[in-house]
Order: sequence, then C-alpha cells, then structure tokens
Amino acid sequence: MVTFLVGIDYWKNVVKGFEDAAQALNVSVEYRGATQYDVNEQITVLEQVIARKPSGIAISSMHPDALNATIDKAINAGIPVVMFDSDAPDSKAYSFLGTDNYNAGVTVARKMAELIDNSGKVAVITLPNQQNHMDRSRGFRETVERQYPNIEVVAIEDGKGDELVSGNLAVEILKEHPDLKGVFVTEANGGVGVAKATKNLKVDKQVKIIGFDTDKQTLDLVKEGRISATIAQGTWNMGFWSLQYLFELKHGLIEPKSAQYIANNQSPPKMDTGITVVTKENVDSFYAK
Amino acid sequence: MVTFLVGIDYWKNVVKGFEDAAQALNVSVEYRGATQYDVNEQITVLEQVIARKPSGIAISSMHPDALNATIDKAINAGIPVVMFDSDAPDSKAYSFLGTDNYNAGVTVARKMAELIDNSGKVAVITLPNQQNHMDRSRGFRETVERQYPNIEVVAIEDGKGDELVSGNLAVEILKEHPDLKGVFVTEANGGVGVAKATKNLKVDKQVKIIGFDTDKQTLDLVKEGRISATIAQGTWNMGFWSLQYLFELKHGLIEPKSAQYIANNQSPPKMDTGITVVTKENVDSFYAK
Repeated sequence: MVTFLVGIDYWKNVVKGFEDAAQALNVSVEYRGATQYDVNEQITVLEQVIARKPSGIAISSMHPDALNATIDKAINAGIPVVMFDSDAPDSKAYSFLGTDNYNAGVTVARKMAELIDNSGKVAVITLPNQQNHMDRSRGFRETVERQYPNIEVVAIEDGKGDELVSGNLAVEILKEHPDLKGVFVTEANGGVGVAKATKNLKVDKQVKIIGFDTDKQTLDLVKEGRISATIAQGTWNMGFWSLQYLFELKHGLIEPKSAQYIANNQSPPKMDTGITVVTKENVDSFYAK
Repeated sequence: MVTFLVGIDYWKNVVKGFEDAAQALNVSVEYRGATQYDVNEQITVLEQVIARKPSGIAISSMHPDALNATIDKAINAGIPVVMFDSDAPDSKAYSFLGTDNYNAGVTVARKMAELIDNSGKVAVITLPNQQNHMDRSRGFRETVERQYPNIEVVAIEDGKGDELVSGNLAVEILKEHPDLKGVFVTEANGGVGVAKATKNLKVDKQVKIIGFDTDKQTLDLVKEGRISATIAQGTWNMGFWSLQYLFELKHGLIEPKSAQYIANNQSPPKMDTGITVVTKENVDSFYAK
C-alpha cells in the first residue's frame, strides 16, 4: 500500500482493513508512503516499491494525473494496481475504491432535514474547484431541491479549506440571513471554523452544523454537541477490498484494464466504500486507536 | 442465486460469474428463480431457498419493496444476503452490486459526442418513472449540458419501453427537428423501434442511435450499423463479486447490515459493476453463448 502523508490518522483504518484481508488470505503486506504532501516524493516511493516486485499495489494518489506514468509502469511490469480514496482515472490501474461523494451529500441533506425539522434556510461552505467537494455539495443541493420543499439553500461559498475563511463566511451569511438554521461544511477545517463563529455570535443553538471526516478536533466538537454530525468515510472497506481486488487480479480471476479494455470503452467495477453519519451517540468509536 | 424470469439470456453471464467465483473459492452454488415476472412466485422461490439453509443468498429483486420481509427473514435466520442488478434498498441485505446508471448515462453522452462530432441536436427516449432509466437520462443530459456546449438536448420523451411508441416518438421529434443528429434510447425495445423509424424515414445515416443492453435484436442492429452503440452491463461482475461478498460475510470478515448499522446511518460498500460500450467492432463477443 502506497499513500502520501504517511502516518496521518486518516490512513490507520485503511491499513487495518488491508491487514485484515491479508490475514484472511494468508498473504503479507507492507505500507509505504511519501512523508510530505509532495507528488515527486510519492512518485519516488512508488518507483522503489515497483523495484521490489510486489504481487500487487494499492495506491491513493495525491494528484489525479501526475502518477499515471509510474502506475502504468507497474502495470506494464505485470504488477496489478488498484486505486483507493483518491483516483488516477486515466491511468491503467484496474479500479477505484472510495467514497461516492455525491451520495455522501445526499445523506448529509437527509440528516440536515432531520436536524432542522424539514424547514428553514441552509448554507454550504465548500471547495468549489475540487471534484470530491463539488460532488458533496451537488448531492446536498439537489436532494434539498427535490425532496425538501421547505428547505432553501441560500448560499454556496468557497471556504478554501481554511478555518478562518470558513468562519468569516458563516458570519457574512448570518448577517444576510439571521434566521439561518444549518450549514454543511464539506471539509474538516471549515467545520471547526464555523463552529467557533456560531459560538462567538451566540447562535450555536440555532445553527446546526454538519462537517466531514473525523479528525480529533471535529470529533471533540461533535462530542460537545457544537457540530451536530460529521461524515466518517469507509476507510476500513477501502483497505480490505483493495487487497481482495489485488488478490483476484494476481490469480487471474478478474481481468486487468488492458489496452483492449480501454479501446472497448469498458468501465471496470468500482466500489463506493460507504459512509457513516457520526453524532454524539456514536462518536466515541471514531477516535483513532 | 435467486432471480425472476429465470432462463432469460440476461442472467447467463451473472450465473457464470457466480460459478467462476465458486470454483475459485471451492464452494458449491445453485441457481433458482421465478419462471414468470411475478413477485409472489419470486417470494415463494425465496422461501423455499431459505428453508434449505444455504450459507448465503444473492438476490435480484423484481420489486424494490415486496421482497423485504422475506429477505429480512433470511438475515434473521443467520443467512447472509446480497442484492445484485435490482436492489431492495430498505431490506437488511448487506449490499448492492449493479450498474451505476448515472455513470452509464455520462458514458453514453461522451460516445454520442464522438459520433456526432461534438455538435448538433439530440433526443432521449426513456422511461421517466423508473429510477434506473431516470438516472441514465440525467447522466446523459447533465454531461451534455456541462461538457458539450454545441450539443443540444431538444427532447426527453417517454417511450414506455415499447418498440412502436418509441418509434413513433422518433418520427414526431424528427418532424419538429429535421436536423436531429442523435437519439439515446435508455432501454432495448425502444432502440429497435427508433432504428426502424429512422430507416423508414431514410434518415438512418443522419441520426445516430445509442441503445441499452444486449438482446439479440439490438446486437443484430449494431452489427448492421443501424444502431451505432449499445451498453452492455457488467453482469459477470455482479455474479462474481456477489459470491465474494457472501463468502466474506459467511466467514465473518465483513459485517452484515445489523440494526446498529442502520441506526448509525452507515451505508455499506456498494459496487458499480461497470459497463462496456458495444459497437460494430466488438459486437460479436456479446452474443449469448
């Protein structure tokens, strides 16, 4: 398994799933990764891994294109590759296992409706230029529009993945819509910023916040009831099923994405690894162990 | 494995995938199903299968709700269940493995753009009240709107899954838009009807047709070049991975969708089993063997 930012909590459950599958299938696994958020370092690590000729590699790519040549090099050397969490869609990697972010947005919309009794103004703070965040935002907005006639999405703003920027945006939105009842923040830093802003303005009882991911700060705020809910991604599933795919590929039970495969416009199976809505009731089980 | 309409060509590849996985995992499988398109018959067959206490059941449900009680009865008796091709989303079945119809629509839009050189009027003939067809149509329309500024979707009509109705609709649309360049028909009967209509009107060179599924009539028309492309669903994948899931569930490697699971708003992993664009070039390999 190869990631970037090796050692951050987010990967721990992925590695656990990978190891659990390895134990069940009686194979051995190793985890490597770039220590920094540096695409060249990840390419170097991947090159080193390929040189050791493993029976398969599961990769989370920190860039949608930059690793393609190296991924294809592994495939051409006969090493099966699957992508998880962050895809390299134009590489020859067999498949992608990760969160269906549109569906995650749909789930958040339903949870928000429950929190605000199906009625009132809501806002979204997101990263409008990043595909996964666009999908979360779109799943949320379209579900509200289709299924909740008494809920109105009054703003969709760019929080830049930043605590302060997102907090200030919440303040601005509340100036224009003092009766705002909910905010969906599609990434973790912004969720923390919005929680601080609503507390400062003393509207933290009125405004329900739904965040994303399960870093410690977010979980603490869920525990305190200041963030109503956050979304845990199916990280264990990503690791577990990545190894299953690699095993099937290695043993010729499923076919790799070959040149012919691509020419036929064939799309390989993909896995939506699922999500869990984390609230006060179940938050304790989501702290990294 | 339990389906409805046992014996139709569509299931053959699914059963093959199921058998291939069974061989790899050294387990034995049986295939049963309702002979008719009759939900009560399918419930009866499922009851009989449960009574034989198998280690797992893969089901394609002919109704989204009607089998829930029987599916849950299997789960409560300790028999793992996965759904494939047609889901029963509110049952306790672990997961769903099938075509992501929205993504299929996206792929069709790209193929259509290629066929008509990225420019011109296109129409969709669909079943606007059935979720899978709505998703195909929406994936197509939204992709055209976002990515192809010179293509215009001039009509989205209800072909009622019928050859004649769909053919007549094509005639009507062509009256209003004599410069129509393409039609996407989201199911097989309609595709055949539109191909006949465009031939009668002698516009079969001008109007490119993309159909869905791989029944013999559609494949013959693809072979003759009268339907430009059709979509083959990843039926082998549905069977293969259904058995993999059942195996993991049976051996406690993954967790079934329990009451606690549902209370936590957890969504289980789902598999998009992929599609293949079938054209004159690769049509021969899609005839049922």
